[in-house]
Amino acid sequence: MNSFVLKGDVVFCPTNKRIIAIEDAYIVVRGGICELVYGKLPDDAKDLPLHDYTGKLVMPGMVDLHIHAPQYAYRGLGADMELLDWLEHYAFKEEAKYADLDYADKAYAIFADALHSSATTRAVVFGTIHRKSTKLLMDKLEESGIVSYVGKVNMDRNSPDSLTESTEDSCRRTERFITETSDKYRNTYPIITPRFVPSCTDELLEKLGWLSEQYDVPVQSHLSENPGEIEWARGLCPDSRFYGEVYDRAGLFGNNANTVMAHCVWSGDEEIALMKERGVYIAHCPASNMNVSSGIAPIRRYLSEELRVGLGSDIAGGQSTSIFTAMVEAMQVSRLYWRHIDNTKKPLNFTEVFHMATKGGGQFFGKAGSFERGYEFDAIVIDDSTLPHPQELTLLQRAERAVWLGGDKTGLIAKYVRGTKII
Amino acid sequence: MNSFVLKGDVVFCPTNKRIIAIEDAYIVVRGGICELVYGKLPDDAKDLPLHDYTGKLVMPGMVDLHIHAPQYAYRGLGADMELLDWLEHYAFKEEAKYADLDYADKAYAIFADALHSSATTRAVVFGTIHRKSTKLLMDKLEESGIVSYVGKVNMDRNSPDSLTESTEDSCRRTERFITETSDKYRNTYPIITPRFVPSCTDELLEKLGWLSEQYDVPVQSHLSENPGEIEWARGLCPDSRFYGEVYDRAGLFGNNANTVMAHCVWSGDEEIALMKERGVYIAHCPASNMNVSSGIAPIRRYLSEELRVGLGSDIAGGQSTSIFTAMVEAMQVSRLYWRHIDNTKKPLNFTEVFHMATKGGGQFFGKAGSFERGYEFDAIVIDDSTLPHPQELTLLQRAERAVWLGGDKTGLIAKYVRGTKII
Repeated sequence: MNSFVLKGDVVFCPTNKRIIAIEDAYIVVRGGICELVYGKLPDDAKDLPLHDYTGKLVMPGMVDLHIHAPQYAYRGLGADMELLDWLEHYAFKEEAKYADLDYADKAYAIFADALHSSATTRAVVFGTIHRKSTKLLMDKLEESGIVSYVGKVNMDRNSPDSLTESTEDSCRRTERFITETSDKYRNTYPIITPRFVPSCTDELLEKLGWLSEQYDVPVQSHLSENPGEIEWARGLCPDSRFYGEVYDRAGLFGNNANTVMAHCVWSGDEEIALMKERGVYIAHCPASNMNVSSGIAPIRRYLSEELRVGLGSDIAGGQSTSIFTAMVEAMQVSRLYWRHIDNTKKPLNFTEVFHMATKGGGQFFGKAGSFERGYEFDAIVIDDSTLPHPQELTLLQRAERAVWLGGDKTGLIAKYVRGTKII
Repeated sequence: MNSFVLKGDVVFCPTNKRIIAIEDAYIVVRGGICELVYGKLPDDAKDLPLHDYTGKLVMPGMVDLHIHAPQYAYRGLGADMELLDWLEHYAFKEEAKYADLDYADKAYAIFADALHSSATTRAVVFGTIHRKSTKLLMDKLEESGIVSYVGKVNMDRNSPDSLTESTEDSCRRTERFITETSDKYRNTYPIITPRFVPSCTDELLEKLGWLSEQYDVPVQSHLSENPGEIEWARGLCPDSRFYGEVYDRAGLFGNNANTVMAHCVWSGDEEIALMKERGVYIAHCPASNMNVSSGIAPIRRYLSEELRVGLGSDIAGGQSTSIFTAMVEAMQVSRLYWRHIDNTKKPLNFTEVFHMATKGGGQFFGKAGSFERGYEFDAIVIDDSTLPHPQELTLLQRAERAVWLGGDKTGLIAKYVRGTKII
């Protein structure tokens, strides 16, 4: 089981400087693990079942490092406000509904179905503060077949009553959430999820840091997204030199466990240095950064300084679950950054964003996002004949085109997660 | 014929400050012309055939003010260069192929089919320098059912040999192109199309201005797209105070006929004032302006000063034919403009971009792009039930969502052009 050979036109990025494209390649998968990509079928793999996708594009599955499940319902609505107003008028109102398990059931079914049928194979997901509905979300994501980290959100200040817990309740429920879900699923794991500094007291953050260490659970949050938010955080934590230091003091900045911080649009030198030192993952969410007027993140700098960068859809700051779309937007905004902000920062190229969308984010999960030896086999297969053209194209051009033109509906005809075919 | 009543959930923008949304509305169409939108079916329309789209979204057809037909083949490829390099390495190489009518036939069939099946009902289209293949393009666009202006491109300097005509040939062929096509089609018209100042001598521009006046043919070109291009144009035309003045002196800037200029990313005060005075249409192409690193056009300023602004896909500077996508991108880049360039320039809202996509660009064609009395009836019908949601939505929210999430594949189930159903 989970041992087979997959044949197709294979494209993947082992580094962000190198994209490999091999036509009619054979990927040998044993026990769900990638052995290697071969140009010719090796003798010792001839007895394995052949999954024949000759002429189709085969890429690693897409990794979404930042997505809010309860916001999926209103993606494409209300992108007429800046972050803080937007949270108050849209996000918090919608998230409050998830106290109702019936509503959560209906909404999360739509969400899980959307992720299942997308090109995404792995995701790092925000739920709401509600323990039960977040567990329901985990049930549905497990059924969807993708691999995910899912967080019960923590909020104990500066939030509407309907979304505010006491510090003690927030910690107690989070601990219970962790113990209940840590070993419950095959592909779904808990993650500690302080919403962001303005909505979490120092005491809460400290206890979450302790839980992360105690249970060895990774962490996700938001960082330096928007000038208004950063100023607010500064006022709330006058003792910290920069935003990320607040998380760091609490042990929530890669000190105890894998950590992903969304956005990092306005991170300064010290914050960047500390992210590098701690190995913090940055979830770059270009659509969201445009839609709620946050700005353009300095991704070229992060790549130059060898920080860890992946992509996030940031539903519903972003409107689309498609990581293909996020790749395109990452390239686009990097061109505007070069033109309008700093012309020493070269725009991102296709190889770089492809790497961010696959192995760059995939490393948060371990060996995922590539077809190298020992990697868990996550793959998508795309029939790009739905995109007619009059001229000859190379395989790399076909891959570029599938990404640029694919969007949410990619001609996706098969999807594998950890060696299991789920579409 | 072409007289009927169409029922559905109707959304349209009579001005860029007002969006009208009426559920279960009746649009009475007589002889292909919109009579009015009624909340209740009027007695004198009860005998007309009913096109019943109850529960579906009905909007004016989308207008694309700037699209290069021969570049459709390589959309989504090569967005790794700035404009001038991109033209040399990609655009010109592809356009040269259209000397071959067989290639043009194959490629333009794909292009016309894409426009037919999109939400676009009207387009202003660049062909290539080749008269015959541009006529072939017109044949195919006429068959597609949409309304279009199509230009044989003029280039007599600074271009590859394969795309350079003598000044005399360029004029003679253009005149022939105009006389051959002016009365040939029902929905397809010629337009005078100097590529841009760097590729047209003063003498050529002057003759094209004369042709425009003589035959009363409108004009399309590019203006102030990219700093490198603008500097080049300045060097070529040292006597002109600004780029647009070069066209103006030749009678190609709205002086003789309707004129649309693509981009206007870097227009200065004098150019803006002259565009306003001459009633020049601006085709705002946000994707292209990102992809080839041109920058963000100051659309808020153009709207404040009441210039005429529509949207363009600018295939293949832009990757998508979808004007829905262009609406989203126009909102997105306006937020970055506000954040990074000038925080006195309020981001564009949904009503404003919806107006640009419909009536704003539609006015270039006369009475098109709205459901007001006397307008030619161009409409799209969208089944938005393909975008599931757990909560109640207003009609306006449904429209916003259809645009934000629709992209190229919109759930489009019907399309009308001048009262004729073409999908």
